[in-house]
Amino acid sequence: MFKLQMRIAYREVTVGNHVYYARYLDLLEIARNEAFRQLGHSLLALQGRGLIFPVVECNLKYHGAARYDDLVEIETTLVDLRKVQFTMDYRVIRETETLLTATTRHAATDLDGQPVRIPSELLAALEPHVKK
Amino acid sequence: MFKLQMRIAYREVTVGNHVYYARYLDLLEIARNEAFRQLGHSLLALQGRGLIFPVVECNLKYHGAARYDDLVEIETTLVDLRKVQFTMDYRVIRETETLLTATTRHAATDLDGQPVRIPSELLAALEPHVKK
Amino acid sequence: MFKLQMRIAYREVTVGNHVYYARYLDLLEIARNEAFRQLGHSLLALQGRGLIFPVVECNLKYHGAARYDDLVEIETTLVDLRKVQFTMDYRVIRETETLLTATTRHAATDLDGQPVRIPSELLAALEPHVKK
Amino acid sequence: MFKLQMRIAYREVTVGNHVYYARYLDLLEIARNEAFRQLGHSLLALQGRGLIFPVVECNLKYHGAARYDDLVEIETTLVDLRKVQFTMDYRVIRETETLLTATTRHAATDLDGQPVRIPSELLAALEPHVKK
Repeated sequence: MFKLQMRIAYREVTVGNHVYYARYLDLLEIARNEAFRQLGHSLLALQGRGLIFPVVECNLKYHGAARYDDLVEIETTLVDLRKVQFTMDYRVIRETETLLTATTRHAATDLDGQPVRIPSELLAALEPHVKK
Repeated sequence: MFKLQMRIAYREVTVGNHVYYARYLDLLEIARNEAFRQLGHSLLALQGRGLIFPVVECNLKYHGAARYDDLVEIETTLVDLRKVQFTMDYRVIRETETLLTATTRHAATDLDGQPVRIPSELLAALEPHVKK
Repeated sequence: MFKLQMRIAYREVTVGNHVYYARYLDLLEIARNEAFRQLGHSLLALQGRGLIFPVVECNLKYHGAARYDDLVEIETTLVDLRKVQFTMDYRVIRETETLLTATTRHAATDLDGQPVRIPSELLAALEPHVKK
Repeated sequence: MFKLQMRIAYREVTVGNHVYYARYLDLLEIARNEAFRQLGHSLLALQGRGLIFPVVECNLKYHGAARYDDLVEIETTLVDLRKVQFTMDYRVIRETETLLTATTRHAATDLDGQPVRIPSELLAALEPHVKK
């Protein structure tokens, strides 16, 4: 499991001082990006080798509202890993309160969107992190 | 079913010239807003009477990529209506190609987030539009 | 002068129900894009021919606050046109109230950011619109 | 002078892999927010006491393009401080290259937008940081 702390900025919130429902996906992407970086395979480096991971499915449950200046933690967990796709779970937490749970499923493709196999080196780096 | 045409702006797209996965939720919100306006109950007027509809669940499937300057159509369909919540389905289409299908479930709450019943007048306006 | 009407969505506003100061630039870009389209030279078509117009300078004065669901009008005026750059003025208006005045200066470059001359055909289309 | 490091995410960039011109203002706001926090007067706490600082003027010069995954530094400098307003300068740097220089001028107002005087305690905390 990977953890990232983020501060909620004005740009994330809307009327009523709660994070706009779409902005949580922006935050999840940042958490996902940092998870890959910690694994030693930045998404930028992989993209440089012609490999990207577009989101093909995303499911979100909103349990509470993050607000301006909140310090939230995003937990990112790899829950499924296959030869051509992977799935990640997320939890956005403020102190002990879960604000959002979410799942994103990603295909492995080349820069033209054609399916490709995840390279064995990357599979080997990801595999120990798959939650049993 | 409600339909809205939208032009994809630079602000929606990211590297590789495809709409960033979170921005589709921005577009769905605009379509939802226009659907309520067409029904004669703008979300702003409802908010002025203390009634809002926060998203409690959102599911998205990405089938293709909208690109800069694309003219897309968003179809919004009310698929479930209850006393304290409703659910909407969406389809984002470019010409004949479906790019995204999505569902949002909304609770009816007051401005403090406490559950409230949807007023009978609004229920009556929505009911004929529920897809059987 | 080109005019575009836009409805302010939830995604544009922040705490206190006013348009977030950066979002006005998003709106100006949409207005600019539509101005070029009306002239018969869409920015997408020009980009397809290797010509883009990155912003090199932007100045904004905020006079009032647009709010959720406001219908605003954006006036776009070409105020300077040279061989390798142009400048546009904007006014964002709600009914009779000016909310924002702004200026953007754009260089003409190729896709790698190298300065290029604006093609004579485009210059000829733009010239009659330069405000004296 | 206050310094903040930021990583450029997918959500900041557009076609051609450069930060969308409006997103720099999002980044400046985060830097400004952290500058106030370091001074011991978070903007949230000030807002809780009825004091906000809406941007009344913003000027930006774009010198280069930040790209996806770049680590940039934002330097924030208080350059003018008066009883009812202040002005800040910014520089966005990637390694030794200046990508953006900008200025924002802020009015001190109550939550309804009426001008107010900056409290003496806050003035005293800000004053030593005004660049001569």
